This record gives sequence, C-alpha cells and structure tokens, in this order.
Amino acid sequence: MDLEFLHSLVQPATSKIVLCSLDGLGGLPRRESGKSELETARIPTLHGLASRAACGLLRHVGPGITPGSGPGHLGLFGYDPLRYPVGRGVLEALGIDFELQPGDVAARGNFCSVDAQGRITDRRAGRISTEVCVRLVERLRGIRLDGVQVLVEPVKEHRFVLVLRGEGLSGRLSETDPQQLGVPPLPVSALAPEAERTAALVNAFVDGARERLHDASPANMLLLRGFDQRPHLPLFPQIFGLRAAAIAAYPMYRGLARLVGMDVLKTGGTFAEEIDTLEQQWEHYDFFFLHYKDTDKAGEDGDFAAKVAALERFDALLPRVLALSPDVLAVSGDHATPSILSGHGWQGVPALLASAYCGADHVSRFSERDCASGSLGVLPAQDLMPLVMANALRFTKYGA
Amino acid sequence: MDLEFLHSLVQPATSKIVLCSLDGLGGLPRRESGKSELETARIPTLHGLASRAACGLLRHVGPGITPGSGPGHLGLFGYDPLRYPVGRGVLEALGIDFELQPGDVAARGNFCSVDAQGRITDRRAGRISTEVCVRLVERLRGIRLDGVQVLVEPVKEHRFVLVLRGEGLSGRLSETDPQQLGVPPLPVSALAPEAERTAALVNAFVDGARERLHDASPANMLLLRGFDQRPHLPLFPQIFGLRAAAIAAYPMYRGLARLVGMDVLKTGGTFAEEIDTLEQQWEHYDFFFLHYKDTDKAGEDGDFAAKVAALERFDALLPRVLALSPDVLAVSGDHATPSILSGHGWQGVPALLASAYCGADHVSRFSERDCASGSLGVLPAQDLMPLVMANALRFTKYGA
Repeated sequence: MDLEFLHSLVQPATSKIVLCSLDGLGGLPRRESGKSELETARIPTLHGLASRAACGLLRHVGPGITPGSGPGHLGLFGYDPLRYPVGRGVLEALGIDFELQPGDVAARGNFCSVDAQGRITDRRAGRISTEVCVRLVERLRGIRLDGVQVLVEPVKEHRFVLVLRGEGLSGRLSETDPQQLGVPPLPVSALAPEAERTAALVNAFVDGARERLHDASPANMLLLRGFDQRPHLPLFPQIFGLRAAAIAAYPMYRGLARLVGMDVLKTGGTFAEEIDTLEQQWEHYDFFFLHYKDTDKAGEDGDFAAKVAALERFDALLPRVLALSPDVLAVSGDHATPSILSGHGWQGVPALLASAYCGADHVSRFSERDCASGSLGVLPAQDLMPLVMANALRFTKYGA
Repeated sequence: MDLEFLHSLVQPATSKIVLCSLDGLGGLPRRESGKSELETARIPTLHGLASRAACGLLRHVGPGITPGSGPGHLGLFGYDPLRYPVGRGVLEALGIDFELQPGDVAARGNFCSVDAQGRITDRRAGRISTEVCVRLVERLRGIRLDGVQVLVEPVKEHRFVLVLRGEGLSGRLSETDPQQLGVPPLPVSALAPEAERTAALVNAFVDGARERLHDASPANMLLLRGFDQRPHLPLFPQIFGLRAAAIAAYPMYRGLARLVGMDVLKTGGTFAEEIDTLEQQWEHYDFFFLHYKDTDKAGEDGDFAAKVAALERFDALLPRVLALSPDVLAVSGDHATPSILSGHGWQGVPALLASAYCGADHVSRFSERDCASGSLGVLPAQDLMPLVMANALRFTKYGA
C-alpha cells in the first residue's frame, strides 16, 4: 500500500510497539532430523507467544527473491524495497556507521592487484588484512580533488568506502571493476549528463590512487562499484506518526534505521545490553526496532547448532521484553539464512504479531512449518507494519 | 514482479528443472463422497512428493477468473497474463501447430448458415463434420487478395483459422459475428487508423467467401472473430537464462511454448512417450516444460472417474521423472477443470515445489484442501517461476 495512504489513516494513541528483527531468522530442515533450526531449538517463550499471537510467513521483496539486509529491513519498516532501492555504496557506508549527508556519493571499494601493465591479477588483492587496508586507506586520504571533499574509510580486509562530498554530485556512474582478470580497471563514465563532472572527479581519484599505491604489494590498485547517493525515503516517524527508536549493536542496521529517520539509540554490543537500552528508553518512544544479529551470523557460517543456540539465547532474554508489556509485539526477521545454505535465502520468514486484538489461529509453535498456516497467511514483508499499526489502534477507519 | 527485474537476478548454474503441467488439474468434491478427484485418486507418488515439497494453491490471472489454456500456461511460464494478452485468433492458430510469423494477422473462423437474405440461421452450421470443413477450406484457399497471402486452415467441425500474411497489417479489427440469429454478418471495421487497409482486405475475403460458399449447404457463409497478431513476448530462455524445452503432445501447448521461445521437442502422442523424450533430451536442456492433457479432457467431459483414472496414470509414470533426479520439480496445472463443472474453473490449482531448499510444511497430501495451508500460500501463478528459479539456485541476492 502507498505510504501516503497509510499516513492518512494515522490517529494518535499511547500504545507501545516493539518490532524484534531476528536477522536471518528463517531456516530449513536439515537432512539428519527433518527439522529446521526453529523446530530444533528449545524456545518456550516464542512458542507461548505464537500460541496467543497471529502468525504467518513474511515474503521479502517478492517470491523467490533472496534479499540483502537493506531490502530485508526496509520491508520490515513498511517500505516496498523494489520501490525504494538503496545503492550498494550507500549500504557499505551505513555498514561502518558512516553518516552519509544528502548529496554525498558513496562507492564500495576493493583493493586489488595489477601487473606491470596495469592488468588485474587478483580482484581482492589476496584478501589483505584489515590492518593493511587501514594503512592503504591513509595513503588514499592524501588525494585532493577540485571542489569536493574526499572521504575514505576502511571496512574489512580488502574493502573500503569512498565518499565524495560537495555540491552538484551524482551517483549515476559506471563501475571500474571489469569483473574479470587480465584486463585493466575500467574508467568511470557518466550514465547521465548531470554525472559528467563527478565521473571526471572519480577518474582523477583513481589516477591519484594508482600513483599512491603503485609500490604497495599485493594491493597496488583499486576497484570502485555501486556508486550511489543516499536515497530520498519518506521518513518512518512521519509516515506512521511514531516516536521511533532503533536499538541495534551492528552498524548496518543502525544505518538503515537512520536512513528512514528513526532515532538510533546508543547501546552495548550484546542483545542483553540492547534490552537494557530498551528498558531505559521505554518511556521516551512509541516504537522500538530491536535487532538481534546472532541468528544470521550462525546461518551464514552454516552452523546449524550455533543458530539453534542463538535462537535459544534470544528466547531466554525475551521475557525481559515481555515484562515491559508492549501493546504490540512483532517478532520476525529480515530474510531467511538457512544453515544448510550458509547464506541468505528466499524462503518465507516466520512472523508473529501479539496484541490484545490480534486474533487467534491454530499456530502454537513458532516455526516455518507452523506459521505457514497462520492467520496472517504468507504476506509481503511491507504489509507487517500496517498490521502492527492497526493492532496498536493507531489507524483509523477508511471510509464511512 | 517485472520480468526485467527477474532477469537482472539470474546467475549461472547447472541445476535441472522440470515443470509438469497437468492440464485442468484442480477439481472439486463431488456430492456423493465429499471428495475431489485428487482426494479420490490413488496417487502415492504425488502424496510422497507433497510431503517433502513446499505446497500451495496457484491462482491464475486473478481471483475468480477462469483462465483459458493460453493465459493459464503463460502464468505458469512466469508471465502476468493480463499484461501479456494473446488474441484468440493467435491461440486458434497455435492450436493447430500453425507457425505464425511476426506480422501475421490471425482470426478464428466459423462456418455458419445464412438464409436467402443473408441472415444467419445457425452460427455453427449444424456443427458440420471436420471433413466437410476441410473441403470448404479448400474453396476459401482460392481467394486472392491484393498484396497479401491468404492462408486458411481447418481446425475441427465448423472451425477454421484465417491468416493474412504481408506487410503493414494490423489486428485492430472488429468481429463479423453479430452473436445473434436473424441478422447478417457484420462488416469488419478498423478499430485503429493503421488497420484500415487490413479491414478492407478482410471484407474482400468475406465477399470472396460468400461467392465461393453460396451453393454449399448447410455451411454457406462464415464468421470471423478474435483478430490478432502474434504478441511480442519477452523470451523465456532469455529472461531466465535457461536452455528451455517443451514436451507436449498437443499442438496448443507446443504453440504456447514456441510463443515464449522454448525449443519444442518432437514427441509421441502419449505421456509415456513424452517421458521417453524427456529422458533422451535430459542432457541438452536446463528446463523442461512437460504437459499432461488427460486430466483436462476428462474434466471437460464431466467424467469424474475418468479424471481420477487420468491422475492415477500420471502418478504411475511420475517415478520415471523422479528417476532423473531433477534439482527442482514443480507440479501444478494451468487452471482447474472440475468434473462437476464440465469445464474450466477459477478454483485454485494445487502446486508442489520439490528441491533440496524448498522447506517443509505440514502438507502431506496433494489435494486442493491440503495445499491450501502449504508454505507457498495461495499465490499468483506467475510467482511460481521465480520460486522455481530460486530453488534451482539460479537467482542471486537482491541488494547487499
């Protein structure tokens, strides 16, 4: 549904909402037991919640589409991720807590190796250590460009972020990574007339980098991809009329929340510390986005037992959230990360929505299999927020 | 989802996909037993597959819409049939294996009966035999028109296909069938300026037909409907990056597959022979569309027992498909043909999707009733192909 339409339904209320995102929540049965991570874990609190909640499966982006964390969370926040794309350079910047300003152009950078003729021999420069990356980034910071600020930040191993800051820049640029070995990096070209000047600036940056890196080994060159500017997203607190806060230990999720205008609360590095923050800030907000990362990490590692353990740790801490008596509690995730895939998946993500008005269904266990037949059905992720708002009695009637 | 968007996600893989379409698969319980055809049939292989597959109900075109075979199969192939309409003249031509060229204008023809004043007395000329139709078509082939080729092909009983081939033709034409008795056939008129010349040509054809048929009885005139040109469809093998083959004993389904660019394999007239073809060509393609007609025929005849038997014959042959170990096997249909309706229906069509990554649900029987609570939910038919592609690990992640 159109966000302006949703906004037109907002009515004032004092209800409190918690949206818990277990990153990579959805899983798949493993062959040995025929059971998924959720079906294996001892998660009595989630099962108890499922019994009194409306349950369903969230489908992010579209059927068969495996979402990255960006589109996955935009969906949870109520945005159709196909209508509001976020560039990869922007996501990379968000992932290191870099505060992108409107107008900044961000790109993902890789250090790479080239031979004496400038032809790429390793697109990741043998995955240099993060310390080496930090030192090389220092060299790049010395590059001066006409009329714009050059900001370079290390990410991890061979990866870094380049941000150009200044007036009249554009992200409509081609990439320098030819995606193959034995050829030199491509020059950047403008994909729209308004990007001509930015293209020239980026090419000047690349020339400067070639000079400054030529005696570094093995990382003696760089590749730039995913140029983009911070997108103009309608702001979550305005659309839904909510004082909205994000509590997330990981920078990527803080960045996504900041992108949609939530207040990002200072918090510790563990989920228990995130809940401390929730308790401390409880009176100051209507809506809390609470992010739990461990499920995704274990799934990405292909570690079924670790994902089961991560679910159990979440479940053990959940009573502290329940003790705050939120009027609406939604628990779901931004995408599946099935351990047997060792990566993100397209599979439906279990969702539960608990409130005094959520209605009953037959689901009494929080699992992929059980939520499939819940009263929420199999629904697009962006449809969760309107249901959350309704359950919080924050939407008025449409039509007389 | 947009086909270009789906195309942007395609990544190379070596997985093999089989999409089985049981024509008119969906059914309805009959009063005597309260069970549908699928619930009555002994189909242990389908039930076994359903147990390990993700199940759901396909909704073709839209809720409450009864699809013809054209829109039904376009949906299975991943196309929104409302966005990619195919004219009836085109479908009639496909149905007799007529190879329509781009630019050809095709129409469905009926022989009819008119009185001495030219007023229609029987819109189907008493359903003349196919042999009579063949002889009358011979007469029509003698008609010459200025600058275009006139192609006429018999179909069945009173039905034939007219195709005009030449430069600058248009299918934006009104029909000659007034859909009532006691009035003469209507002249064709252009529905768009670019169709003026084609309208004049068709009217000249009708004049020629009147002369050549006036002494034939009872079929002494004709009616033309559903003028259209072959639509410009994005090609299935290009969209999905698949070497795609169609195996279908019936011409209509071969024609639909050809329309979307699949290779149409030579095969025999039985489903066992279709599977022979599948086995022989297994190495040469990534994707096979395998069509089974008997379910629809029995349903159209209103023969519940025959449809049950057709399902059991399919089930008995299915192990030969499984023996090939496709990475993804999807089984569904192009529409319902409930025996108690003796025709196509709008009801949801059971679908199962089996792969190593399809996930589990509670469905352990392949029936309308059980599939309704599967993890695929009730989904538009065109959403099946993206799920098939994802399960074949042929789609990359969207967004970082």
